[in-house]
Amino acid sequence: MEAKGQVTAEKYAADISSIREAQLRIGPFIHRTPVVSSETIDAIAGRKLLFKCECFQKGGSFKFRGACNAVFSLDDDQAAKGVVTHSSGNYAAALSLAAKLRGIPGYIIIPKNAPKCKVENVKRYGGRVIWSESNLRSREDTATKVLQETGAVLLHPYNDGRTISGQGTISLELLEQAPQLDTIIVPISGGGLISGVALAAKSINPAIRVLAAEPMGANDAAQSKAAGRIITLPETNTIADGLRAFLGDLTWPIVRDLVDDVIIVEDKAIVEAMRLCYEILKVVVEPSGAIGLAAVLSDDFRNNPAWKDCSNIGIVLSGGNVDLDVLWDSFRK
Amino acid sequence: MEAKGQVTAEKYAADISSIREAQLRIGPFIHRTPVVSSETIDAIAGRKLLFKCECFQKGGSFKFRGACNAVFSLDDDQAAKGVVTHSSGNYAAALSLAAKLRGIPGYIIIPKNAPKCKVENVKRYGGRVIWSESNLRSREDTATKVLQETGAVLLHPYNDGRTISGQGTISLELLEQAPQLDTIIVPISGGGLISGVALAAKSINPAIRVLAAEPMGANDAAQSKAAGRIITLPETNTIADGLRAFLGDLTWPIVRDLVDDVIIVEDKAIVEAMRLCYEILKVVVEPSGAIGLAAVLSDDFRNNPAWKDCSNIGIVLSGGNVDLDVLWDSFRK
Repeated sequence: MEAKGQVTAEKYAADISSIREAQLRIGPFIHRTPVVSSETIDAIAGRKLLFKCECFQKGGSFKFRGACNAVFSLDDDQAAKGVVTHSSGNYAAALSLAAKLRGIPGYIIIPKNAPKCKVENVKRYGGRVIWSESNLRSREDTATKVLQETGAVLLHPYNDGRTISGQGTISLELLEQAPQLDTIIVPISGGGLISGVALAAKSINPAIRVLAAEPMGANDAAQSKAAGRIITLPETNTIADGLRAFLGDLTWPIVRDLVDDVIIVEDKAIVEAMRLCYEILKVVVEPSGAIGLAAVLSDDFRNNPAWKDCSNIGIVLSGGNVDLDVLWDSFRK
Repeated sequence: MEAKGQVTAEKYAADISSIREAQLRIGPFIHRTPVVSSETIDAIAGRKLLFKCECFQKGGSFKFRGACNAVFSLDDDQAAKGVVTHSSGNYAAALSLAAKLRGIPGYIIIPKNAPKCKVENVKRYGGRVIWSESNLRSREDTATKVLQETGAVLLHPYNDGRTISGQGTISLELLEQAPQLDTIIVPISGGGLISGVALAAKSINPAIRVLAAEPMGANDAAQSKAAGRIITLPETNTIADGLRAFLGDLTWPIVRDLVDDVIIVEDKAIVEAMRLCYEILKVVVEPSGAIGLAAVLSDDFRNNPAWKDCSNIGIVLSGGNVDLDVLWDSFRK
């Protein structure tokens, strides 16, 4: 019989070995991001919080870890024709940069309504922008066309063992930098980040809790956990534009088994947490990046007896790519 | 005969010994701030830049190092009645926090026109706010009155050996974190920060260059270096509200002897550098904090043959206390 939450090899799309291999593979290319803390914020939260600053990662988010691991996992023949993805978000910039470092083309299919700063990031890192309409059908059709024309490899932003393994390197670093952690809180969207983080963290310390933070307006992961199967939503509505994806068939089993709970957060609380990050931590985060702090400060978390002895909490500030104009408008509301 | 720029003991208000003592004294209280870098910014600058993030220091700026060293240098009898300073800026918050940590009163005389976020910082850290008019006369009169009433010790924000020694600990950390540096660029105002940084850095590596960055609208240090004596200005005009002070009799000899050059920067360039810090580094800096980057990107620096082989440059991001409203207005201009 298998204990609940136990991490076993070969059961999931990634494991501690593939994560350690990823660390060796991507080590020369990534930033080992710092961990910062603030007694002022600790006093507000009533706990010790340690912030892993993936907003300082290359490309401005944790996504570079997974993209870099996927790109450098390809053999030379596979890689030569380039890589392609459809993303309006941080994975697009991350994959562009990883492809550039490997010296191969990175084709990025971007919907026309994507945030300006994220498109600029793709161009800055040498990605080849290919526009599509904003609906999924157009994005997939465009991807198929690019694949046929170029022979490039399609890489998925989160539903891929190589991506999950790359994201898991965050836990390896974080638990070296702050071995006293009893809890890690991670934003959840498609589940790539939290899958890697949970696999690595629970292999190193089976007692550690891994909690997801999810916006109310895109709470498919919470619904999935409750239903015991992947739930998708007809639409999402949140300021956290990076957290609108749904779980994939590779991330879902890991989220189902290893994520201890999903904490739901209102957009208003996300904006307040962003403001604390700017004013107290002095760290630029995007809305998705601040949701972990919002979760820790939420009544749902504070009042839940299950989490009352979470006293040393690692929070992954997942990214910092935000249009300053959009940011400002959110603070003014 | 003494070589120009050589650091000798007992000549200045601080030296490498007092700085190492400060490091031991304040070590338990300060953050060892991280060093971050960006290949994107390196490409813009044409050099390798390493940013020492004192904006993440407690109190939001490097000032806490000096304040902490001064407060914990006092013997118990001196300390018991508290400390007092007149400052509208980061030193006020820093001294409040240092006094709180020592368990003594911190009296902070603040002019009525001080930025809101800086007053809030003082209150947050437990400082006792005493208002004065914004002119120097009123500030000094108020200080005298507080000293008479309380018996507290007056501490100067920069013209004090203990303060200079505390700020010098930045170099000790930075040169451990990035021993390859050939140059350090530091904002200059009253000279406390750059004096400590230069004393420590040149003791460790006499070949290292220490350059000051100063706003055009408050260029008294450049004028002082040119004249060979302390020059003060009838008025200052710059967005960098932390850089309006003039050199003191203790900081001037160090600036005169150990600072290799002063690079003058326009406010417009400071705002552009701030934007890079937000958009690329993802670090919240105040205008004074961004001036080092502005200096490195300036034509004056780029075109000066004396600095063409500065290839590994440490930049002190000195602070991050900024009203988001004020910041935004500066970006919109």
